[in-house]
Amino acid sequence: MPWWKVILWLVGLAALFSLGIIVGHFAVPKEADQLAPQDLDQELLEAVMGQLDASRIQENLRELSLKPHMATTLRDENLVQLLLQRWQNPESGLDAAGEGVYEVLLSFPSREQPNTVRVVSSNGTTLFTSQHSETNLTGEQGDPEVVQPYAAYAPAGTPQGLLVYANRGSESDYAYLKDQGINLTGTIALTRYGGVGRGAKAVNGAKHGVAGLLVYTDPGDINDNLRFPNETFPHSWALPPSGVERGSYYEHFGDPKTPYFPATPSAFRLENADIQGFPPIPTQPISFEDAQKLLCEVNVTVHNRLELRNSSNVLGIIRGAVEPDRYVLYGNHRDSWVHGAVDPSSGTAVLLEISRVLGTLVKAGKWRPRRSIVFASWGAEEFGLIGSTEFTEEFFSKLQERGVAYINVDIAVFANATLRAQGTPPAQSVIFTAAKQVPAPGKSGLTVYDNWLQYYNRSSPAHGVIPSLGTLGSGSDYAAFVHFLGITSMDIAYTYDRSKTSARIYPTYHTAFDTFQYVESFLDPGFTSHRAVAQTVVNVLLRLSDSLLLPLNIGDYSETLRSFLQAAQDKLGPLLGQQSIDLGPLVSAVERFERAAAALDQRIETLRKNLSDPLKVRMVNDQLMLLERAFLNTRAFPEKYYYSHVLWAPRTSNVVTFPGLANAYDEAVKTPNDPSAWAKVKKQLSIAAMAVEGAAATLEPVDDL
Amino acid sequence: MPWWKVILWLVGLAALFSLGIIVGHFAVPKEADQLAPQDLDQELLEAVMGQLDASRIQENLRELSLKPHMATTLRDENLVQLLLQRWQNPESGLDAAGEGVYEVLLSFPSREQPNTVRVVSSNGTTLFTSQHSETNLTGEQGDPEVVQPYAAYAPAGTPQGLLVYANRGSESDYAYLKDQGINLTGTIALTRYGGVGRGAKAVNGAKHGVAGLLVYTDPGDINDNLRFPNETFPHSWALPPSGVERGSYYEHFGDPKTPYFPATPSAFRLENADIQGFPPIPTQPISFEDAQKLLCEVNVTVHNRLELRNSSNVLGIIRGAVEPDRYVLYGNHRDSWVHGAVDPSSGTAVLLEISRVLGTLVKAGKWRPRRSIVFASWGAEEFGLIGSTEFTEEFFSKLQERGVAYINVDIAVFANATLRAQGTPPAQSVIFTAAKQVPAPGKSGLTVYDNWLQYYNRSSPAHGVIPSLGTLGSGSDYAAFVHFLGITSMDIAYTYDRSKTSARIYPTYHTAFDTFQYVESFLDPGFTSHRAVAQTVVNVLLRLSDSLLLPLNIGDYSETLRSFLQAAQDKLGPLLGQQSIDLGPLVSAVERFERAAAALDQRIETLRKNLSDPLKVRMVNDQLMLLERAFLNTRAFPEKYYYSHVLWAPRTSNVVTFPGLANAYDEAVKTPNDPSAWAKVKKQLSIAAMAVEGAAATLEPVDDL
Repeated sequence: MPWWKVILWLVGLAALFSLGIIVGHFAVPKEADQLAPQDLDQELLEAVMGQLDASRIQENLRELSLKPHMATTLRDENLVQLLLQRWQNPESGLDAAGEGVYEVLLSFPSREQPNTVRVVSSNGTTLFTSQHSETNLTGEQGDPEVVQPYAAYAPAGTPQGLLVYANRGSESDYAYLKDQGINLTGTIALTRYGGVGRGAKAVNGAKHGVAGLLVYTDPGDINDNLRFPNETFPHSWALPPSGVERGSYYEHFGDPKTPYFPATPSAFRLENADIQGFPPIPTQPISFEDAQKLLCEVNVTVHNRLELRNSSNVLGIIRGAVEPDRYVLYGNHRDSWVHGAVDPSSGTAVLLEISRVLGTLVKAGKWRPRRSIVFASWGAEEFGLIGSTEFTEEFFSKLQERGVAYINVDIAVFANATLRAQGTPPAQSVIFTAAKQVPAPGKSGLTVYDNWLQYYNRSSPAHGVIPSLGTLGSGSDYAAFVHFLGITSMDIAYTYDRSKTSARIYPTYHTAFDTFQYVESFLDPGFTSHRAVAQTVVNVLLRLSDSLLLPLNIGDYSETLRSFLQAAQDKLGPLLGQQSIDLGPLVSAVERFERAAAALDQRIETLRKNLSDPLKVRMVNDQLMLLERAFLNTRAFPEKYYYSHVLWAPRTSNVVTFPGLANAYDEAVKTPNDPSAWAKVKKQLSIAAMAVEGAAATLEPVDDL
Repeated sequence: MPWWKVILWLVGLAALFSLGIIVGHFAVPKEADQLAPQDLDQELLEAVMGQLDASRIQENLRELSLKPHMATTLRDENLVQLLLQRWQNPESGLDAAGEGVYEVLLSFPSREQPNTVRVVSSNGTTLFTSQHSETNLTGEQGDPEVVQPYAAYAPAGTPQGLLVYANRGSESDYAYLKDQGINLTGTIALTRYGGVGRGAKAVNGAKHGVAGLLVYTDPGDINDNLRFPNETFPHSWALPPSGVERGSYYEHFGDPKTPYFPATPSAFRLENADIQGFPPIPTQPISFEDAQKLLCEVNVTVHNRLELRNSSNVLGIIRGAVEPDRYVLYGNHRDSWVHGAVDPSSGTAVLLEISRVLGTLVKAGKWRPRRSIVFASWGAEEFGLIGSTEFTEEFFSKLQERGVAYINVDIAVFANATLRAQGTPPAQSVIFTAAKQVPAPGKSGLTVYDNWLQYYNRSSPAHGVIPSLGTLGSGSDYAAFVHFLGITSMDIAYTYDRSKTSARIYPTYHTAFDTFQYVESFLDPGFTSHRAVAQTVVNVLLRLSDSLLLPLNIGDYSETLRSFLQAAQDKLGPLLGQQSIDLGPLVSAVERFERAAAALDQRIETLRKNLSDPLKVRMVNDQLMLLERAFLNTRAFPEKYYYSHVLWAPRTSNVVTFPGLANAYDEAVKTPNDPSAWAKVKKQLSIAAMAVEGAAATLEPVDDL
């Protein structure tokens, strides 16, 4: 038998063996089994993880990233059909899948009149003109569907003025220039990506009179200083000199015309002039190759225009067998800026492989989760998390009542060194448990958890040295779930070895060089990191969908709250004391929370010994599921669209504590003699204490007065 | 045997018989019974209703109304202790009872410097001085604890000016005077109670420059024109000439210093100057006896002052046996203006009798409800529903997650003619079912339901001719439950025969003549109407707490929505059409709701045939319980404290439809050429449609995509 036949035989035997395990262990329970409540099946879990196939993920990615698929383009619509076909497949699809369409306001450059940056002489001669596209190095950059680099939602206009280098365009960067005696009025500010958000660079500049904004990617920030064609992609993972980061410059998220309304055709829409959060001045991103050629007087011509477009979410469901009204949601966006092999197709490739394996089990009648699993492919994320936000608006009540958790995998693999997870505290333990069951890619022999621990760790009072779970900002589609809905959320990926690169993000981010070849050659040859992410995610997913008792560890919120309190006491306490502002109510609230969480954990341990009463289990699960909701206060930050979560709203202060309190404190310190500024601090203190007290009350025995 | 011994024997036998029924039917279920899920027990219900004793209600009322018990006074505190003793009684108390104290801002007149209204001559001589107290006709009016009539929260001051009669002090009343060429600046406006809210009379007047406000009770509005001492109380139920209606003139509800915060000692408090909604001008209520003596130049001296006071709620619980995390709440306020025999002690007398009967069963181990029952005695309602509102703020998350329904019985008996119930539509059917099981007081032989049907009825497309269920405004402690929390709520009382009186409300309302004698002599001799209310309420209460499937008929919301839609189409449609504002989205939303509600009703009928799966029942009950929540939108009416319910927020328009839509329409009609006014109409239309769509989504099958 030739060697390849041996391999075929072995593969076949392995597949049969796996199938046998599945048939043997996950057959529909017989009458006699019905009495035992459905719970997580460890062997099923192992088998499912084993079924996740790196080469299938690789083939998914190849197809997904074949062509540019910016939101609402023809190729985006093709991928909608691809997802629907996969999820409606009779052998490996889900129970149901469908499309949700919203009419949303996007922003595009003009094909006919490309945006241009020119250096002009004093007599009006053009001395230099910026490139309209990236250099065609691998063929993909020459695709006619590649969108010209632009700053989405920046207004059209042709400002011209003296060039001023404004570092990262932060408030303090502009203030520094002003302090140097530089009059910024009418200037064109040249800034580099990073430090502050895209839109903030324009907003800050406009406050100082800046007339036009340029943003480039600095090789020092992204390339570990590599800058020449022969040392950048396709010769390494580094960004070629002509690469330009596209991106949305909208300051909020969701469809800009319909804040708090789902963007159905009939929804109330703001007039474009009434929209808040668009960059106020013409803005254009450029390459570092072009940036270094700019000098003196610069003209920026932007022809962006706003367009109402139909954007689709694709949704699929595996219906829960026992608690179909409890939803574990797992999603990623579908739209890219160009080919988007990394962002977002690496995540979508994983999503499709997970849905295939689970769908196959369901279609074969071998398994059905205890709770419903909802799969989502969001549209128009790149323009501002639009698809996911509109979805949360449309199904707000339903999701708020029934959402157990939201798992986001946007970029699945930034790099192949270690897991990186972000989430709210109740998600920590289930991610840890999952990561301990997955082998790390490579030859270390470590689990994903142990490998992670080597790269990012911290010392936890309760758990000792553990991997660091990051917090969730608003960088991807989890934003509306955590901030607007108060659903326990997480984001999972593989990422960098920070000892080897200081790149702000993977170098070809949002450029025409983010291609399949880039992933295959530099980020994850063999797709083993993709598989490790898939295995970790499916493990988390099944634990959430199938465990009789929800694996959300509320005790981990005690640790967060205690650390927030400690930071407030240490960093804010002295000056608050001088203002007779007492942190005592927050101390009492945190202590009450700690007591309530510990007591509930005790009751859960007791319950674990006898799980036969389905209502008792459901009541405890409701407490666990709804804890995150209790931290919402829709009136806490009225000026910030969608931000209601008192613990995770944007924090501008660098004190890691309750964001409303820290931000108000920072403002008050600037005007220490203004009683109204300190009143705002007191108000935010009350908001924080009330949220923690209210959350504690939900954990206390349900029949306590 | 003398006749009285026969009666004693008969009473004893009846009591034994009742006890037998209870023991026989409601014994703790044996092992074999455990498999059948706990459901409503009709015979228990009948027995409980039979135990409710009119003479006990009478004795409760005698004690409760013995002394003035204005919020936070010593007597109010005594009643807190009375409630605690009753609810902690080892034989007839609840499982637990406790006190919740809030530090709230109240307003009181000065004992040392009574508020005074004077008629002054042009040379400054005082020609007439108003009375500082009501005439002591029955002894109670002479109690030193009777508070001087005053307008709570009206500012202190001594305006003096020409007297102007301004009817009811509505916006149009003042506008009429202005149109007649009368300069209102610096005047004292004399208005009569009714028509618009108390505070509105001052707010409207101040806009026109009115310097001081007087409010009197007109015999035509309250007394069917009776006005002389020999034809008013104690000779009839009519208000004596010296009677003055006290009341709160605060425009919002809840503690004025802590909107959206529970008024704990450490809560953030507004500076008094920053409080919104206080009457802007000195205001004083007066008697009709005094009102007729006023002429020409009038001086109003108000010495009211604001005080922070501790106000208590008393809470008690009977813990649920099966679903302790589902709360049926039943409450009433405790504080009165003076003796408050009718308002609120008639309701509290009923509350105590119901809690006694149910507590006795629980303490004897004879019964325990399926769900938890929470009893509440609210503090400081008269100042603006303060105790109940603070409670909903403190336990917002817990109540929003778990509140099944709130039953309010404030004034239990306005008069003894007929039941009067208000509520949101899901409450209608359970009130009807209960009312059909209670005999109406008097000799008619009718049920409470049939008697009600004779007095107040309407034709329902779904049900034919049925009693009219009123809607809930913000007149009592249900306000925060329905508007802020979105909990299905209702208010139940016995009330007038409108063919016999046109009194705006019972004549001694908020005066020192609202006494036990008044109730016993004129409102409900024999206390049979009190008992009928108690029986109806306990029936509703047990149906909500004990029925396996919640008796909330969501189909009745379909009827409401259809009627709102029809009114919008008929009354607003033509002009909206001219503005190209399409009601189509609202039509679709209502149709979707109707379909979803009907389909859920079908599924419930199927489920009813096999109720053995506790999770299936719980899932449906969650849909029913949470429907009301789905109509909340915290951003719908941002300027109106606490009002989030899209269907029941205050409606100033007289078109009975979605209030936000109707109000915005009325505004736009005033400025038909202002596009921003029509944009607000469009926005409210979207808010309404979104709420109905979102609510429909919660009724659709839980595993629908």
